[in-house]
Formats: sequence, C-alpha cells, structure tokens
Amino acid sequence: MAKELKDLANREESYSQWYNDLVVKAGLAEYSAVRGCMVIKPYGYALWENMRDALDAMFKATGHENAYFPLFIPKSFFSKEASHVEGFAKECAVVTHYRLMNDPEGNGVVVDPDARLEEELVVRPTSETIIWNTYKGWIQSYRDLPILCNQWANVVRWEMRTRLFLRTAEFLWQEGHTAHETREEAIEETMRMIGVYRDFAEQWMGVPVVVGHKSANERFAGAEDTMTIEALMQDGKALQSGTSHFLGQNFAKAFDVQFTNRDNALEYVWASSWGVSTRLIGALIMAHSDNNGLVLPPKLAPVHVVLVPIYKAGEYEDVVRRLQEIAGELRAAGLKVKVDDRDNVRSGFKFAEYELKGVPVPRDMAAGTIELARRDTLTKEVVPQQGLADRVAALMGEIQQSIFDKARAYRDEHITRVDSWDEFVDVLDNKGGFIAAHWDGTVETEVAIKEATKATIRCIPIAGADVPAGLGEPEEGRCVFTGNPSSQRVLFARSY
Amino acid sequence: MAKELKDLANREESYSQWYNDLVVKAGLAEYSAVRGCMVIKPYGYALWENMRDALDAMFKATGHENAYFPLFIPKSFFSKEASHVEGFAKECAVVTHYRLMNDPEGNGVVVDPDARLEEELVVRPTSETIIWNTYKGWIQSYRDLPILCNQWANVVRWEMRTRLFLRTAEFLWQEGHTAHETREEAIEETMRMIGVYRDFAEQWMGVPVVVGHKSANERFAGAEDTMTIEALMQDGKALQSGTSHFLGQNFAKAFDVQFTNRDNALEYVWASSWGVSTRLIGALIMAHSDNNGLVLPPKLAPVHVVLVPIYKAGEYEDVVRRLQEIAGELRAAGLKVKVDDRDNVRSGFKFAEYELKGVPVPRDMAAGTIELARRDTLTKEVVPQQGLADRVAALMGEIQQSIFDKARAYRDEHITRVDSWDEFVDVLDNKGGFIAAHWDGTVETEVAIKEATKATIRCIPIAGADVPAGLGEPEEGRCVFTGNPSSQRVLFARSY
Repeated sequence: MAKELKDLANREESYSQWYNDLVVKAGLAEYSAVRGCMVIKPYGYALWENMRDALDAMFKATGHENAYFPLFIPKSFFSKEASHVEGFAKECAVVTHYRLMNDPEGNGVVVDPDARLEEELVVRPTSETIIWNTYKGWIQSYRDLPILCNQWANVVRWEMRTRLFLRTAEFLWQEGHTAHETREEAIEETMRMIGVYRDFAEQWMGVPVVVGHKSANERFAGAEDTMTIEALMQDGKALQSGTSHFLGQNFAKAFDVQFTNRDNALEYVWASSWGVSTRLIGALIMAHSDNNGLVLPPKLAPVHVVLVPIYKAGEYEDVVRRLQEIAGELRAAGLKVKVDDRDNVRSGFKFAEYELKGVPVPRDMAAGTIELARRDTLTKEVVPQQGLADRVAALMGEIQQSIFDKARAYRDEHITRVDSWDEFVDVLDNKGGFIAAHWDGTVETEVAIKEATKATIRCIPIAGADVPAGLGEPEEGRCVFTGNPSSQRVLFARSY
Repeated sequence: MAKELKDLANREESYSQWYNDLVVKAGLAEYSAVRGCMVIKPYGYALWENMRDALDAMFKATGHENAYFPLFIPKSFFSKEASHVEGFAKECAVVTHYRLMNDPEGNGVVVDPDARLEEELVVRPTSETIIWNTYKGWIQSYRDLPILCNQWANVVRWEMRTRLFLRTAEFLWQEGHTAHETREEAIEETMRMIGVYRDFAEQWMGVPVVVGHKSANERFAGAEDTMTIEALMQDGKALQSGTSHFLGQNFAKAFDVQFTNRDNALEYVWASSWGVSTRLIGALIMAHSDNNGLVLPPKLAPVHVVLVPIYKAGEYEDVVRRLQEIAGELRAAGLKVKVDDRDNVRSGFKFAEYELKGVPVPRDMAAGTIELARRDTLTKEVVPQQGLADRVAALMGEIQQSIFDKARAYRDEHITRVDSWDEFVDVLDNKGGFIAAHWDGTVETEVAIKEATKATIRCIPIAGADVPAGLGEPEEGRCVFTGNPSSQRVLFARSY
C-alpha cells in the first residue's frame, strides 16, 4: 500500500514525470475534463492560501489595496496597445454568444445563433486594458495619484502545451496595477514590487532568486522594462517566478488617461504592473522535493506536525488521548497540528503518506518515547516530552533556513561563468543551470543562441542582486556568440 | 463640496436611485465598460474581504476545505442534468474560439475562424456539473466520504437587467459542494450550512433573516429541496441572501458517481451545494443605510474610527502627532483606525465623506476635547481621553447590536398575517414587507399570485425559525387566493 502510494518516477531519471507524479499523488492538483485546465485539490489550495495571505499582507504593508475588475475584456480594448495585442491575441478564449438553446433537430443543447454578442469578449489573459479603461474615470488631477490597486483573480491563456501549475490554460494569480504622477515614481514602484517578490520567494518559499531585467525580446507585451525573479530548479532549468513591469505611458496613451499635473499642465499617467501566480507552487515543488515526495517550507506548509499513534492492542484510546493533549500544547505554540487517529490504516502507510505530502515534521509516538522525523533531511531525533513545543517550533525555523541554504548552495554552484561558445554549449548540456556570459545586446544574437541551444537570456542581473560576486556589475568583455563588445554578463539558461 | 459629495437621491422618494447613488458615491462599485459587469472598488472590496474571511472561518470550523475547479464547463456536461440545463442555458456566456487574428481586410483584430473549439465551453454560472464530473474520480468507497469542499470564485450569469451587487453578469461568490454516504447526512449538511448563513447574516451583517424552504417553483435547478435565508430591505422588498440545496442523487446519477457502501453494495452518492455572493453587500447596504450614506456593522467595516485633526494655524503638526498616538492606542485595542491628515481638504468635507462611507465612529478632535460622532444614530458624545480605547471598543459592540435590533424591529413590524385576498393586495401595495398567508401548495396558485401582484413565495418558514410566534408551525387554514385547504402559512413578498 505504502509502496503504491509512493510510486513516483525517479527524479534523476525523468524529472518531468517525477514532477507530474508528485503533484498528482501528493493531492495538490490534477487535470480536469477541460483541456489544459486544472483542479486545485484541497491540499494544493491550502498551500496557495498560505502563499496568498503572506503576499497579500506584504502588498498591504506597501500601501496597496485590493479591488476587482471584470473577467471579460471587449475585443476592441485589446487592439488599443499594439504590442499588447500582438503578445496575447494568439492564445485567448473568446466569448461570442450569451445563450444556449435546445437543438431544434433534437441533438441536445446548442449555441443559440440569435444570441451573438455585438462585440466579442476576451476572457482576461491579464487586465491592463480593462483596468486602464477604468482608471480613466478615476484620474483627473495629481491629487488622484498614486493609485495602488491589486487584484486576486483567475486568468486564461490558451496555451497549447500545459503542465500542472507551471503552465495551464486557466491559472490563479494576483496582478498589481499602479498609476503615478512621474516616471521616477512608477519605476520606483516597479522595483519595490520585484523586491517584494524576491523577499517572498526567499524568506517564505525558501527559493533563492536572481533579480534582473528581461531583455527586450522577453519583455511583457506593452512594457518599457520588465523586471523578473528567476529561480533554478533541481534539473538545472530556470523558472521565471514573478515579474514587475514599468509600463511607461503606454497604456495611459492607449486609453487616453491624462491628469493635470502640479504645473497645471495635462500629462499622461505613468504605470506599473506586476504579478505572480499559482506557478509559484510549481517552483516550490521543483526547488525542494525529492524521490520520497514533497518537501515544504514550514512557513507555507498547510500542516507542520502530524501525530501518529503507535499502540498495542487495548492502548489505542489512551494513546490518542495523550496525542490530543500534546497537539493542544503544540497548537498553543503556533504550530499547525494534525492527529491522524484513523484506525483502519497502518501507521507505515501514514508515515509514507505524510512523507509524500512533505509535512515538515511527521512525528512518531510510541508509548512514552517521542521521535521527530524531519522531512527535509530524513533524519530522526528522540526528544523528551518536556519542552516538546519549543523544540518543534525551533525546528521549524531550522528547516526553513536549511532548505533555503541547500537550494542556495545548489543555485550558486550552478551559476557558471563562461567565456567561449564551446564552453557555453558544454556547460548547458552537461551541467545545466545559469550561464553568466557576455552578450552583445542585440535581439539577433539572442534569437540565434536560442535557436542553437534552446537557452534564453533569463535576465540581466541588477547591481546588488544577491548573487555571486561581480554579477550585475559592469564588466567589459566580448559576446560569447559574436565576439562583439559587451559591458555586462547576462544569465542564460534553458527554462520552463 | 460636501454638498456635492453627498448628493444622493432621497431614500423615501426613489429607493432604487438612492441605492445606486450610494454604491457609486461611497466608492463601493461602479459599472464597467462590459455590459452588466461591475468594478468592485477598493472600499467595496475591503468589505467583501471581511465578509469572505468571516465566512471562510465558519466553513473551516464546520470541517470544510477550499479547492478550485475550472472556470469553463464543456457544453455537454450542462445537458446531463435535465432541470439544471433548463435553469441556466438561457443566460450563459459561451466560449467558441481560442484565438484572435489581424483582420486580413485591415479592420483591426477579429476572431480567427480557424480557431473554433470542437466543443463550446460555458463560463460557469455554478459548478455542480464540473465538480461532480471531478468527484467521480475521487469517490470509490464510503471511506472516501464525506467530501466537504468549498470554492471562492467568480461566476457569470447573463442577466438582462442588472443592478450593482444585487444582480450582475459576473459576480464573486463561494459555492460549497459536498458528497455524502446517506440521504440523512446530506440533508443534515444542507441544514447546517443554511444555519451558518443565518448566523453570519445576523451576527456579522446585523441583518435578520427568515430561514425556510423554497417552493418547488423557486427551487435551484437540479435540487430536491432549496433552503433560503430571506432578508427584508428598507423599502419593504425581500432579498434572497443565501441558499443551501439538498441535491439528492441527481448530480451523482447525471455523472455516474457511485460508491461501495458499508454493505458492500454500489450506491449513488448524496449531495448538497450552498452559496452566498457579493449580493450580500447589496443586502448590507439596503438593510441599514440612510440618506446620509452607508451605515456599516462594526464587525465588517473596513475602518472603525477616523481621526480628523481640528486645528488652528501653527497647531497642525502637534495635533496630528497627538492623533497618531491615540491611533496607536486604539489599534492596540483591536480597532481599525485611520488618521486623515490631508491638509488640502477641509474637515467639514472629511466628516461628510466618512458619514457617506459609513465609518461607525468618525471622531472629531479639537485641542484637548474628544468628540465621538456615532454614525448609526448620528448622535455625538464627548469623552475623556483617558479610557478612550475601551469606550470606543465597547461602542462597537453597542452599534453592532443596535443596528441589528433596529433592522429586526423593522422586519418584525413588516411580517403581516393576512387572511383575505383584499387584505393581501392592500398590505402589499401600502405597507410592503412579508405577508404571512395560507397557500394551497400548488404551483398554479403561486404563479397566479405572482402574475396578479408580482409577489412570490419567499419561503416556507421552518419550525423554530427566529420569527414572530407561530410562523413555521403547522396551522390549518384556507389559501388566501383559492380558498383551498392549507396546513401552514408561507411568506410572500415582492423581492429583488
């Protein structure tokens, strides 16, 4: 039974099958009957709720408010910002009718041809257009600025190749949309929010990230600049985990949103937008988990400790009662505790299940002895019941730090400085990870490298980014592909 | 300025215009560019967040978990439960294509005719079908039951006549979907959740409700029984505020969801579903507010207290600093406090604004004196700064109780026992509210009464419902319309 439960593909042999098995078997999500759309199961959703709540508190602490804008966007809005429609038109769900009817020929239910919409509606793939159309009514003067709104919502992008959490036709996310008086303020906001994402990824998810600019080619459709946080997965591929865009005045111009500035002159409003999604759950899984199942950071884990009764015949009720007392003590210390008192399931099965589900400290309890089984390191320790809550609470902090440190060490080992094309290809194929190389700054070279190797520029790291020394600093060199001059190394990788 | 801000239609002269003005001017919501869809503005969304958080805690306390199911439902799923499709087919948004393209004739962007879906997708108006299709994979044995899932989501019903919060094409809601071994358990769940809704409406929103069964004619499409909570608005019209459905085995049969029961026999699963939506915000507004603006229950108000500096030239900074100190004390007592230190807005304007926005205790502070202006009663009291936090915290409890009592008294005065048709019509036209009358139990009579008066059966109250004595108890009588025998009074009203 425990065997069957854990029947995961091997991570080292087939990373992508291992990932899919893990998501499904740990009860996080599954595909639905609708192409590319997933069902987020209760355990996966509990993880998302914890992520959402932490992020939401960070957004509010930085002065943002939540609001809600329509799911549907009139088709004509889409066309107003030229590069935006270019970026999204090819993958959007379009509502054309508003009624079904009984088929006059008796073949069940069909779309009522008389109920065609005058203008088609696009299911939002992102909400810049509908929001900037709304902001037009909210902004007259500099006194109405800044507007600092965030929205938690579902969005739809009709992706052809989908993967649970990482790329699905529908996903959950948040999208911040801010409006500012000046270019500087909008850029400051863009940078503030990519910083919030970095802090969340590192401090909550335990996933180290590199902060940098996207190259022009990888920029958000409609942005002047896109900042990204890039994480490294255990198979050496990068995952874009969050982006923050400086939109300039592009959307204000597209929707004619002007304001009277402090000099009493009319000016277009400056904008930022930023978002993270349920994709973060994929990042979390792929950054830490192993062949035994999920490894979750305590700060986000839906359950911290499971108490499993180990008992001889006749002891069951006593043991469970004692575990309930201990659970009370642990809960009083702020821990999320579950007592698994199922008596129709063997304890071996239970341990395998919680290992699979990544509970940070599944706990074993056999008549008087208390054994802590630590999920991340798979180590065990026996501790006295006295002071148990303090010990477990402290352990949570240790685990949180430990999985970050481990991921950080892996990430740092997998940033390789490369100065020749042969080395570039060799590292990419045989080691993986990020390659720090010089690039001549042209789209042509970027595209040629991608075509040759499937590697893309993940980001142009910013100075002060928390990455190995020197990255993000100016450095004279020669493009690894063309040999043309370059003034800074950028990070290449294959990616999800 | 304050005048313009408060330019609401008069509640007694034009209730519906007053309502609309209030929603818009208090900054709760507005219509969007998409027909029938609203933008929920930050103040309205903050209210919804508070409602959602309170409800979510109540759902979790009763053993439910959150999950997320797809936005889209294959058209064929819809047809599987006959009365369900009948109920929803006429008002649903249908996705037929998945791509836009540049118009070859140069007229901007058009739907790509080559990107037609094989099967159309309906944007969920409710999720029974997609969820029961999913549950089929989750349920094999009685050991897999019960399943107690809730979803927070957006849904779309293509309503022709819309009204902010009360009836919009897209709205936010939660929908619980549970699966059970037995009929009794599913009915118990149905009743438990309508009880949760009643408690939430009364204890959090301060809105008294009548709990009862819907008549067959008003039942949810696909339910065997629908329980409702019915609230009374200040114009004497009823508002259905939440429903909980016993679905029998209808959806299990439609999606072939069977389980092996304790007797090792195959049986169809029993179901309930239940939901409340952003409509509750409409109920909240219409139940308590007045010609000065919103009146909000403290338990749900986004802001409890606003501190407005009153100062003479040169005092501004001192006064604001002192208010910040007081704000700290109030926050420490669990109050949500805002210091409005805008120096480009007159205090009279601020007071009018917070009155409009229904802040329970806008507070005035002029050099040493502290004046509390209570929003619900529009009374003022001067209190010493010593013990201020305690006084304000206590006041919140008083206000919460007081607005409930007031709404309750109004509701009780507006439940009129009626025993003749003339009286029925007279009360309906001249007094409004609920009419407790005998009904012969037939759909024909219900429809005839509706056609004659626009009044419908809001509910058949249950015994023990917290309504004036005797309602919900068996009582022999004669139908007010046909004179045929009846065994219980039901509640009629005109409604939203």
